[in-house]
Amino acid sequence: MRGDVDVDEVMVACCQLELAIGAVAANREAGRAAIVEAASQGAQVVVLPELASSGYVFEDEAEARHLAEPLDGQTVTAWHELAAAHDLVIVGGICERDPGEARPRNSAVVVDRDGVRAVYRKAHLWDREGLVFAAGAQPPPVLDTAYGRIAVIVCYDLEFPEWVRLPALQAAELLCVPTNWPREPRPPGERPAEVIRAQAGAGANRMFIAVCDRAGVERGVRWCNGTSIIGPDGYPLAGPVGEDRAATIAARCRLKDARDKSIGPRNDVLADRRPQLYGAVSR
Amino acid sequence: MRGDVDVDEVMVACCQLELAIGAVAANREAGRAAIVEAASQGAQVVVLPELASSGYVFEDEAEARHLAEPLDGQTVTAWHELAAAHDLVIVGGICERDPGEARPRNSAVVVDRDGVRAVYRKAHLWDREGLVFAAGAQPPPVLDTAYGRIAVIVCYDLEFPEWVRLPALQAAELLCVPTNWPREPRPPGERPAEVIRAQAGAGANRMFIAVCDRAGVERGVRWCNGTSIIGPDGYPLAGPVGEDRAATIAARCRLKDARDKSIGPRNDVLADRRPQLYGAVSR
Repeated sequence: MRGDVDVDEVMVACCQLELAIGAVAANREAGRAAIVEAASQGAQVVVLPELASSGYVFEDEAEARHLAEPLDGQTVTAWHELAAAHDLVIVGGICERDPGEARPRNSAVVVDRDGVRAVYRKAHLWDREGLVFAAGAQPPPVLDTAYGRIAVIVCYDLEFPEWVRLPALQAAELLCVPTNWPREPRPPGERPAEVIRAQAGAGANRMFIAVCDRAGVERGVRWCNGTSIIGPDGYPLAGPVGEDRAATIAARCRLKDARDKSIGPRNDVLADRRPQLYGAVSR
Repeated sequence: MRGDVDVDEVMVACCQLELAIGAVAANREAGRAAIVEAASQGAQVVVLPELASSGYVFEDEAEARHLAEPLDGQTVTAWHELAAAHDLVIVGGICERDPGEARPRNSAVVVDRDGVRAVYRKAHLWDREGLVFAAGAQPPPVLDTAYGRIAVIVCYDLEFPEWVRLPALQAAELLCVPTNWPREPRPPGERPAEVIRAQAGAGANRMFIAVCDRAGVERGVRWCNGTSIIGPDGYPLAGPVGEDRAATIAARCRLKDARDKSIGPRNDVLADRRPQLYGAVSR
């Protein structure tokens, strides 16, 4: 099946993990166990949270640097072994030691049986991340995998519709979003605003979006637990989890459906764009 | 108070009207009555649906041309008189006879006591509109009014995040969206996808969005009845109406709040953008 991107349905799973700052071994083990369990249930693409080995709420840059790992470090190596053993595509976040940069990166990798297929460095930094990480300056990678055409961004990136549009323009079928969404107050009965933006991004681009959030309390910070897999119509196929616990969700996704941008007989969400009128957006 | 855009709260109303194709006199009267009623309740900005005088489901271009009106026609003249009498800003859609163009326009006007302050011609045409109307080629107008800085787009325009971003970049506080959202199937308990996109647009830009949809069945087409006023946090302040009937909703909006794009101590939804990386969006 490898190289055959005309698979009819792909089982996409998101493993919402309970993580702890600095507890690298335990965090890795939580990820490993969740990946194995998802694979045993038939998952083919597995998405993990942002900073899945280090935790998120760093005291300062020094702590993040201490917890950073290179792309051939233990976390990504373990993901590679798991991807090879179970024929998975794994997308997860790490605190990356970038040899070309003094500061660590808030990165996400796409790993399959061949190893690291792409690394993405978060371009829009949230809150104290600006004190800790070097921001990326490359657009989201979009790559063909055994299961379909996959792109990746991280957390706050998703709140910039331009950043979601870029992979759609590159024909991404599934946008994976490792995230740590801090919980904010919201009106009763409403979904997290972040989930709503993910829904809108999926619908406006007719693209699948798989968001993997996290659980647990870290130095007083709680999370949205907004892990969800959203179809190209903008509605959840699975999730949002909405509970503060480790949980894996999964959905069978006809990723090929994302190639069809038509809505009704005369409209197409990409062809109907008027890019020549959008110049101010990129100035 | 005119010219004083530091008013604390502005009452924004959206009048979801039941309209009928070609019933211009009745449609005008429905609009007039709703505007007067909204003003009597304290409304200062009143938003009406798309194509509020003509109706929407035209047989062909000839029918639309027959129903088109110039900017000094009866509908806009009536809105001007109502705006002057009640000190309103009125934003509503008309089938416009554009002297510079053979085909009619799907337009929206912003009218206050001084008359027509702006005309916007829908740039993204939905379904058979492409057979009926000439598309606009100008970005959304953004203008200072007695009640705040107001922009206007129409219906399907809202599904292009770039088109929502443009007025936000021009410091619009309130984006008014006359619309006729055809009803599509959706999962039980879910809001219309169009409302979700409006919520995301408001939140991503920290801008108020007032959408005025419509009611009634027109040549077999039903509507979302998604009329809603959304705050800069992305949550509805009023609506969505969700019922197929004429209904006016209103919310007191601190439009000034839309000038503050900060979210938390270190983030700003506009300043955090990376426009130099968004070039492909406008190519």
